[in-house]
Amino acid sequence: MSATKKILNDPYEVAADMLAGLIEAYDGEVVKAGTASLVKTNIPDGKVALLVGGGSGHEPIYHGLVGANLADGAACGDVFAAPPPNVILECAQAVNRGKGILFVYGNYAGDVLNFNLAAEMAAAEGIEVQTVLVRDDISSAPPDKKEDRRGIAGLVIIVKLAGAASQRAKTLDELVRITTLACNNTRSIGVAMKPGSIPATGVPTFELPDDEIEFGMGAHGEQGAERIKMTTADTLVPIMMDKLLADDLELNAGDEIVLLINSLGVTTMTELLIVNKEAKKILRGKGIVVHDTIVGHKLTCQEMAGFSITLTKLDAELKQYWDMPCESIAYSKM
Amino acid sequence: MSATKKILNDPYEVAADMLAGLIEAYDGEVVKAGTASLVKTNIPDGKVALLVGGGSGHEPIYHGLVGANLADGAACGDVFAAPPPNVILECAQAVNRGKGILFVYGNYAGDVLNFNLAAEMAAAEGIEVQTVLVRDDISSAPPDKKEDRRGIAGLVIIVKLAGAASQRAKTLDELVRITTLACNNTRSIGVAMKPGSIPATGVPTFELPDDEIEFGMGAHGEQGAERIKMTTADTLVPIMMDKLLADDLELNAGDEIVLLINSLGVTTMTELLIVNKEAKKILRGKGIVVHDTIVGHKLTCQEMAGFSITLTKLDAELKQYWDMPCESIAYSKM
Repeated sequence: MSATKKILNDPYEVAADMLAGLIEAYDGEVVKAGTASLVKTNIPDGKVALLVGGGSGHEPIYHGLVGANLADGAACGDVFAAPPPNVILECAQAVNRGKGILFVYGNYAGDVLNFNLAAEMAAAEGIEVQTVLVRDDISSAPPDKKEDRRGIAGLVIIVKLAGAASQRAKTLDELVRITTLACNNTRSIGVAMKPGSIPATGVPTFELPDDEIEFGMGAHGEQGAERIKMTTADTLVPIMMDKLLADDLELNAGDEIVLLINSLGVTTMTELLIVNKEAKKILRGKGIVVHDTIVGHKLTCQEMAGFSITLTKLDAELKQYWDMPCESIAYSKM
Repeated sequence: MSATKKILNDPYEVAADMLAGLIEAYDGEVVKAGTASLVKTNIPDGKVALLVGGGSGHEPIYHGLVGANLADGAACGDVFAAPPPNVILECAQAVNRGKGILFVYGNYAGDVLNFNLAAEMAAAEGIEVQTVLVRDDISSAPPDKKEDRRGIAGLVIIVKLAGAASQRAKTLDELVRITTLACNNTRSIGVAMKPGSIPATGVPTFELPDDEIEFGMGAHGEQGAERIKMTTADTLVPIMMDKLLADDLELNAGDEIVLLINSLGVTTMTELLIVNKEAKKILRGKGIVVHDTIVGHKLTCQEMAGFSITLTKLDAELKQYWDMPCESIAYSKM
């Protein structure tokens, strides 16, 4: 395979350089807080705060989700690494407006450890923190072991809903309730055709034969669930949709969902749109109503070829939060 | 090089499959018109219409720019091919509300030929058409041969401005005037590190040694202006910005611009953000104020590695149109 040919500066400073460029992309709406966080400049006093975070290298998730009616701040880790507890604490101090903070992040061991430590450190300073873990990847564990599932692109929809809800929530408990509902209503499945690589080393995050597709690999190259032979969209998408719809989220004719077709890196928008065509055919056949579709690069893993499909069931309450406008580097809506 | 591993159906039906999936992604806000166009469902009577178009395979441009406060319709060509005149005519018939239609598209020979033919056919039916060509690529011809320049990612900003202006323009001439101003104020420069390929054949759109970067190749692999050795962001971006700022668009301290850092395909958001960091450093040094930054995959060329930098100078009139919200698959703003 030929060289990756990425345009970077020092490959060991990718996370810091990316963060500087991300803050610049907000044109004054966010500032750097502490060592490696970005925080909105206009968080009102008395607001229940929403803090996201995770490793770098998956742009525009997680840190690109800070914005209007979205997250108030984000704590950034190194490439594919959880943010350290002190970084998360600095971010918590910066977003805190006295009404508590909700931490929302993907269920990865390193993140859980560090965010929990930071929550304890914040509590010691009198800052109340609660956590909602994102565990949308149905390939990573069966429904009866849902606690073990990883978080993938569903986090975009969940943070969109939580960000909108955080504008109105009177208490941290209220925001926890709504965000938990959003998580419980969200399921994702992903496939990969080629690995990404770590920018500092060029080492691929996993190995995969040229004629195979892997189901359910993690965003960092964690072992997937199974492999099938390379195939077409109209064969692959029904397999993925069958798995999604067979999971334990009840979806009946007339139910409304948000649908996200996400590129994990080099998979093109052309392909995502063809995937969307196949997914919609299946959803229409079941009478499931897509209220809003998102197609694009949201959670990436460098030059990984692959994509994920996420659906979130909307009830009347979630739908009202979905329909609020929002703006950020990762996702905007009028 | 290993196989591309794209998830498609029939590789000769990519454009039609993509269009079907794109229409589905709009969840009822657009419908298919004629053979290969999409058109908004809620164009008011008496509106001056805005029609865009071009080849497929560059998603989310051009056809993903149909939407609220954006284009009213888009005519789709096959992969990397101009839409045929009859397709453009069908689209024109569908968006026509009796006040004339503005065609906005990139300056490519095939597009110019077909859009002009369609404009004549429309005129024969009593539909008034005017055209504004997008020619933002400064590498494709010197300033004194600006008529020969190709259109690249600047089209996103231009269509955003034209779409907003089309909501208020009383006449086609008024919309032509504003869109021409947007074009005159827009400059882009692109580089490529690796070619994309044509989905039906897998044939790369150009050849490039593993240790070189090409300046100013076209989105379909047209010959670029020059080649340099592979380098870092903090070396490459100043060269690109010097060329952009040395072109004939006058930019002084205090002037406001919109900045677009666009991935041509596999170049990651991580890289784009690092490029943004370097670009902002240079702009700040000159006192140029970035009013809004866009970072992402907007004009792509399948799996091409590369990116472009676009800037559009805003005067008071353009700024008011920039600040209007918009929503589409390609670009949304709160």
